[in-house]
Amino acid sequence: MKPLNVLVPPGVLVAGTTIALEDSEAHHLRVRRAATDASLTLFDGEGATATGTQHADGKSVAVLVGAVQHFPRPPLTVLAVGAGDKERFLAVSERCTELGVTHLVPLRTDRTQAVDTRFRDSSIDKARRRAREACKQCENPWATVIEESCSLTELAERHAGVHWHLGAVGGTRCPAFGVDQSVGWLIGPEGGFSDDELALAVGGLSALSVSFGPSILRFDTAAVAAAAMTLDRRRTT
Amino acid sequence: MKPLNVLVPPGVLVAGTTIALEDSEAHHLRVRRAATDASLTLFDGEGATATGTQHADGKSVAVLVGAVQHFPRPPLTVLAVGAGDKERFLAVSERCTELGVTHLVPLRTDRTQAVDTRFRDSSIDKARRRAREACKQCENPWATVIEESCSLTELAERHAGVHWHLGAVGGTRCPAFGVDQSVGWLIGPEGGFSDDELALAVGGLSALSVSFGPSILRFDTAAVAAAAMTLDRRRTT
Repeated sequence: MKPLNVLVPPGVLVAGTTIALEDSEAHHLRVRRAATDASLTLFDGEGATATGTQHADGKSVAVLVGAVQHFPRPPLTVLAVGAGDKERFLAVSERCTELGVTHLVPLRTDRTQAVDTRFRDSSIDKARRRAREACKQCENPWATVIEESCSLTELAERHAGVHWHLGAVGGTRCPAFGVDQSVGWLIGPEGGFSDDELALAVGGLSALSVSFGPSILRFDTAAVAAAAMTLDRRRTT
Repeated sequence: MKPLNVLVPPGVLVAGTTIALEDSEAHHLRVRRAATDASLTLFDGEGATATGTQHADGKSVAVLVGAVQHFPRPPLTVLAVGAGDKERFLAVSERCTELGVTHLVPLRTDRTQAVDTRFRDSSIDKARRRAREACKQCENPWATVIEESCSLTELAERHAGVHWHLGAVGGTRCPAFGVDQSVGWLIGPEGGFSDDELALAVGGLSALSVSFGPSILRFDTAAVAAAAMTLDRRRTT
């Protein structure tokens, strides 16, 4: 039987040590009816994975850490996404880890400020949890980093040196990306970026408009499309 | 103000005629507080769109159809997707219309039969509604056709002549597609295709394995990724 995947806090994976699991992970093992000496695969969401063995330790669930592997940080892929509907944004957080996005930025835009159900910074911990949880399911050793929200202007300063692309109806075909190139995407909210924001994206951030096809995509569909195209278009050698 | 988008039954759009709206669409107009003589854009989900003007007609909401446009059927893009969790599958139905997928097939697979919450044929009408509803939001004149479920063997007969691709961890980079090429994708359920199914996909359906990156994708993420890559990789001339 394949070992069960378990999430552990960042930085705790050291071979030969015993670590206590968080309650949510201990619960996950009970639900999956893991044997008391079950083999596990441990993910810390920051590039380390390890084999592990569950063992009973009084009331809490402890794990003996076996061989540890460290995976290099993947090339920078930044998705800056209009912080629209919270539930959709949380789902994007999860999918970003699946698709190898390294950083997800909730963008404050002209057309998200009036959205009642919008993703707010008060939900960032929840988004981070969703991104880390996804490591167990998709087996990516690196969870997407969920940053605090910002505007397009702040984004340009925060991620200087990134090659920005703008998901658009119309625009050019997606270019090929170098193996280590820093790739960024600007994904507008429902209703799109305002004219001022588009001018800033193309001017200030020098974003290349890339076609996402003839239809108007929901922001969460566009985010997944951008991540998938980046994976497909990044040269691997 | 931009005209509101409204869905009408297939085939009813004839310039100069008056049509009654379905209750759900009339409700949609009330919620959006459309004026009684509001300008509308009408979508029938089968390639026809029209301008329209609402007018009061006793208790029901009627629309006078203006100029009608017919859009050619887009090139065949078939997504055959393991019929896993129903809610995720319904969301895929909607995203397929956004991304120009022409046909979505719920696949019965070895690893979906035991999923309690799986998408069943009893929900096909709901999926069709979701695919058609998406026309209003994304302005694609063609809703994705949601087919009845089938096995991989039946799929090969139903869609003979399609070039099949298999979403896989590993595999080659996505190829370029001809402007009129029939492109098909086989997307496994949670837990993946069984070994027998993989043999059938590669053997019987001659599917090319295409890399979706190093991580294990959820079936709904993989479906959106396949659709996005097809849009990006299809030559437009």
